Amino acid sequence: MSINVFEHPWLSGLFGDAEISAIWAADAQLAHMLAFEAAWSRARGACGLSDAQEAEATAQAIESTTIDGDDLRRGTGIDGLPIPALVKQLKAIAGTKDVHLGATSQDVIDTALAITLLKSLDLFKSRLEEIVGQLAQLEQRFGDQAMMGRTRMQAALPITVNDRIETWRLPLQGYLKRIELLRPNIGVVQVGGAVGNRAALGDHSECIVASVAKALDLNVSDRAWHVMRDTVVEAATLFSLISGSLGKLGQDITLMAQQGVGEITLSGSGGSSAMPHKQNPILAETLVSLARYNATQVAGVHQAMVHEQERSGTAWMLEWLTVPQMALATGSSLLLTKKLLASVERIGEAG
Amino acid sequence: MSINVFEHPWLSGLFGDAEISAIWAADAQLAHMLAFEAAWSRARGACGLSDAQEAEATAQAIESTTIDGDDLRRGTGIDGLPIPALVKQLKAIAGTKDVHLGATSQDVIDTALAITLLKSLDLFKSRLEEIVGQLAQLEQRFGDQAMMGRTRMQAALPITVNDRIETWRLPLQGYLKRIELLRPNIGVVQVGGAVGNRAALGDHSECIVASVAKALDLNVSDRAWHVMRDTVVEAATLFSLISGSLGKLGQDITLMAQQGVGEITLSGSGGSSAMPHKQNPILAETLVSLARYNATQVAGVHQAMVHEQERSGTAWMLEWLTVPQMALATGSSLLLTKKLLASVERIGEAG
Amino acid sequence: MSINVFEHPWLSGLFGDAEISAIWAADAQLAHMLAFEAAWSRARGACGLSDAQEAEATAQAIESTTIDGDDLRRGTGIDGLPIPALVKQLKAIAGTKDVHLGATSQDVIDTALAITLLKSLDLFKSRLEEIVGQLAQLEQRFGDQAMMGRTRMQAALPITVNDRIETWRLPLQGYLKRIELLRPNIGVVQVGGAVGNRAALGDHSECIVASVAKALDLNVSDRAWHVMRDTVVEAATLFSLISGSLGKLGQDITLMAQQGVGEITLSGSGGSSAMPHKQNPILAETLVSLARYNATQVAGVHQAMVHEQERSGTAWMLEWLTVPQMALATGSSLLLTKKLLASVERIGEAG
Amino acid sequence: MSINVFEHPWLSGLFGDAEISAIWAADAQLAHMLAFEAAWSRARGACGLSDAQEAEATAQAIESTTIDGDDLRRGTGIDGLPIPALVKQLKAIAGTKDVHLGATSQDVIDTALAITLLKSLDLFKSRLEEIVGQLAQLEQRFGDQAMMGRTRMQAALPITVNDRIETWRLPLQGYLKRIELLRPNIGVVQVGGAVGNRAALGDHSECIVASVAKALDLNVSDRAWHVMRDTVVEAATLFSLISGSLGKLGQDITLMAQQGVGEITLSGSGGSSAMPHKQNPILAETLVSLARYNATQVAGVHQAMVHEQERSGTAWMLEWLTVPQMALATGSSLLLTKKLLASVERIGEAG
Repeated sequence: MSINVFEHPWLSGLFGDAEISAIWAADAQLAHMLAFEAAWSRARGACGLSDAQEAEATAQAIESTTIDGDDLRRGTGIDGLPIPALVKQLKAIAGTKDVHLGATSQDVIDTALAITLLKSLDLFKSRLEEIVGQLAQLEQRFGDQAMMGRTRMQAALPITVNDRIETWRLPLQGYLKRIELLRPNIGVVQVGGAVGNRAALGDHSECIVASVAKALDLNVSDRAWHVMRDTVVEAATLFSLISGSLGKLGQDITLMAQQGVGEITLSGSGGSSAMPHKQNPILAETLVSLARYNATQVAGVHQAMVHEQERSGTAWMLEWLTVPQMALATGSSLLLTKKLLASVERIGEAG
Repeated sequence: MSINVFEHPWLSGLFGDAEISAIWAADAQLAHMLAFEAAWSRARGACGLSDAQEAEATAQAIESTTIDGDDLRRGTGIDGLPIPALVKQLKAIAGTKDVHLGATSQDVIDTALAITLLKSLDLFKSRLEEIVGQLAQLEQRFGDQAMMGRTRMQAALPITVNDRIETWRLPLQGYLKRIELLRPNIGVVQVGGAVGNRAALGDHSECIVASVAKALDLNVSDRAWHVMRDTVVEAATLFSLISGSLGKLGQDITLMAQQGVGEITLSGSGGSSAMPHKQNPILAETLVSLARYNATQVAGVHQAMVHEQERSGTAWMLEWLTVPQMALATGSSLLLTKKLLASVERIGEAG
Repeated sequence: MSINVFEHPWLSGLFGDAEISAIWAADAQLAHMLAFEAAWSRARGACGLSDAQEAEATAQAIESTTIDGDDLRRGTGIDGLPIPALVKQLKAIAGTKDVHLGATSQDVIDTALAITLLKSLDLFKSRLEEIVGQLAQLEQRFGDQAMMGRTRMQAALPITVNDRIETWRLPLQGYLKRIELLRPNIGVVQVGGAVGNRAALGDHSECIVASVAKALDLNVSDRAWHVMRDTVVEAATLFSLISGSLGKLGQDITLMAQQGVGEITLSGSGGSSAMPHKQNPILAETLVSLARYNATQVAGVHQAMVHEQERSGTAWMLEWLTVPQMALATGSSLLLTKKLLASVERIGEAG
Repeated sequence: MSINVFEHPWLSGLFGDAEISAIWAADAQLAHMLAFEAAWSRARGACGLSDAQEAEATAQAIESTTIDGDDLRRGTGIDGLPIPALVKQLKAIAGTKDVHLGATSQDVIDTALAITLLKSLDLFKSRLEEIVGQLAQLEQRFGDQAMMGRTRMQAALPITVNDRIETWRLPLQGYLKRIELLRPNIGVVQVGGAVGNRAALGDHSECIVASVAKALDLNVSDRAWHVMRDTVVEAATLFSLISGSLGKLGQDITLMAQQGVGEITLSGSGGSSAMPHKQNPILAETLVSLARYNATQVAGVHQAMVHEQERSGTAWMLEWLTVPQMALATGSSLLLTKKLLASVERIGEAG
């Protein structure tokens, strides 16, 4: 039972998004961490830091094992991170001490984050494309209808439905481009070792990084990004841009659906416990809430840039508290928009 | 599996706080909502709006029923709230339409919130008292030890350990007083009906409010607080004040534990996957993260004050996204402080 | 020329509030700082730390001097604070080294802050009273008019104008009480000396604190609040509560003024450069902007609670960047509300 | 006298940045607004909407006039914007009603914003280049020196000064690239007319937009960006990324300058009014404050994305309250970093 609206027993009926939740789920995160450790072992083998055959055996052991989650939880309570406990389990399973050598907890967790962010962007891209398509259809169906243009909450001059919908659609198309620009920056393997300078890898550093990156389908980098969090901020910003633009769409629809305005008809809107006759534009409202939620969280991600020395526990944990939540809010926001647009029966001036 | 660090399969090993989670858990929330509906039925009986005997039977049926959670989730997806579905279930169970009559969803959910906030304050109070006691003990043990007073991150003039600890303890004692001041304002039953003016209750309004409030051990109010959210902001502010002061304590301890400073010795600190020799002050670090997290969230709660007309779905949902999380962060922060202070082996100038 | 909207050459025509600006103006701040230094000298005389007659002469010299502002600016560039330069000037003026002895920069600046916060609260109190009076008059004039109650942006059930206005008025009346509760906590002299423990004052500490407090009409405290910023957070919270409730009022009025709703008529609203026929509810809109502005800033004030060791330059400066701005926004918000309510010609269902 | 630290009589000695202030100053803004109106008149002439010769005469009259600022202030108080008053003045000066025709206030103000943002980016670029150069020099001078690598505030493993400085330098180099990517998106003329669809320009729309854009050295767009604020958010994000990375640098330096750590020597640091012997790392501290300030403000800019209908007064004004301040904080942050790095006398392990 979660207090998190995205995973709450009943609030998830509104806010829940099974696809984005699956991407950020703990078991997916664990799978990525194991994938890193397996790739790391193979890389050590390939680059001559470990015996290649033994490294392959270790990698396969890592890939086929089942992890004791209770032990991870206990370990996190002691170490602040699951990785020391995880590595201990993996060493026992693989029957070797040659696991994780030269890597550090942040390498594992941040690489898993990179993979998760990429998957999130892919999901968002596909949903944005669907929504752009839905909007284009609405433009085709209702675009030439007259509507009152409204500025500063006052009737201004007549526009068409196309004029309004374009302001919803164009930013979303822009985000498709931004996703493409962001992907290579986000999809970068994290390899730094204890203090971020890859010192433990010596001359093998480049080989290891290339090998791990290739195995995980990520890009290489010249340096660990342990304390350089600008790409994480950029991902969070894009999440909030998406939910922000959808919040504008939602706000508009709540205004259009008002009695006395009547510029939109929605099917299947929200019921009221006190007034069965009412139809509340709950999907549109939720878009506004999620936009304001992400606008709030993004401040925390920016605060987390003040990352002292070679690794800041405090700044890093602040990301854990905000970035996944933003991804879920954005996923939810896209999903609700799809439902909301599918429920539009009519847009344009009241008849 | 939750992405929420407070309920995450392994991150909860660090951030988790079973007591505060139980207070905010969905089943506790449901129990409070049922308690409201039962109290409501009895109040209708007591105030002459329903037949008293039937009302009592209805109340007992509500109290002894088991709710279909899947149905609540489905209902929330449709109505944006679980209450219409819940009321439908209750009507079927009680075999009467005389359930929830004159109340509205927000009455139920906000009254449950008031109860939950009170329980949170009680837990925080008892933990604050324990922590104040722990600090007093540390003062007794180490208070007269010399320490360097540091301002603007520079050694300034010698102080004693007492001087430092007092700046941790005094605000916490102040919060104990604030909790007492806040309790009566927070613990107010929400009764407004459809549009917040209790119109459906007619002349029975005062009787109903008094009766429900008494049954739930809450205070009455002259008016619904549907759109007047200042007390919710105040509760959130107190949560953030507590975690903020503990963040100061945590920040100080991370600075005291530095090599070259050595003003504190902690037992059982965090291990590193790359450097087994290290002892990371993970509990102290987490306090800083949680302080900055709540400082971020509190902005969302303030944004939610712009509550349009007789009820804003968007503003209200923004509270659901932020207030419970702040309570969990504060609970976690208090729990971690207790652990952290229990681990202090020595404070004062390095020998 | 300021980029600050509250002091901007033309934007101040909308946002400007001469009274709150005067309270926070640099010259007022300087006057409070000089008042502290004069009171400090007299206190040293009264408590036997300095020769009483010389101390009085020093105090009078401080009170009657003109300060070289350029020198303060240069000094702030070097020291991060104006006080070292100010004290140097005062020593030269008074012809003695016995100035500021035993005090520290933060004592001076925070005491000036306390005075400024009190004056702000007094102004806000008097404006809140006026606004409560204006609202009561509107209730008298239009209170019985019918209006549609609206929840979740949808027409719900009929209410009266009174029902709506009460939700604007009651929180403001509550803030009057909160101001009274907050005044004694805010109005506390700051005396700590170099590292906050008043060590330089020895046995005279209590006498000095009492004497300075009395001279400045402030309360004493047992300890410096250098690093315990909860009362500053509470003041900022109250500022945001006020502007938040006025933001709700503003949001409602923008919605009421819509074509098709027509529940309010305002005189003298905003013109448009493109559409001379339009009347924009600019005062109501600005209330929403200011509410959201303060809701944003308050997060910074909470972040500033993480005040390391005996004084944090970073946390303290973060207050300078946010608290005055919040006070100005709140002052502006109250002033605009007065104008807005004075412009109401009619409230209630469109005829 | 401003309460704004960037323009405050003495606090500007620390926070002030004359160059960025000049870019955002009201007179510069007015100059850009007049440039827009002049370009607009010429465009109307060039595109056949006005008589070309008269349009040129109007443009020249606009360019050579002196504006009555008091009148703009009065006008802003009435209209919420200076443009109606400005246009009235311009019509009188030019002796024609053919001024601003087909444009709207937001076209003028946002185009001025675009120009101002570009100039800010140019200044930031040149300063980033200088800082990157300073860092490269420090790497050359001290890069091979040993230093303790520190993670989670604990000594971890030895690194070199290069390892640390690289984490300061690389993000800044990345921002140089981001500035290049952002410039074309930011530097877009705003032309929409009353309701954003350029309807008043009819078939001449493309011609007018191209002509105004060319005159102002901006890019064209297919549509007004009145309510699509993603590029404003991106500019604000880049501002906060820059100050955030400099905040990390500042935080590191405050930690390096601690007694017992001694990894850096700075010349000319801040004096204390109570302890003349102290040297406070005030520039480094200020970088942290400014980072956290911008991290706070950026939330407001994201909130401003919820821009209802064809123009939201409330959302737009929220930008005025936050975006200029962020630019000033970033400018200040870059300037202070230059001073701070110039004051470095030594980096590396204490001798």
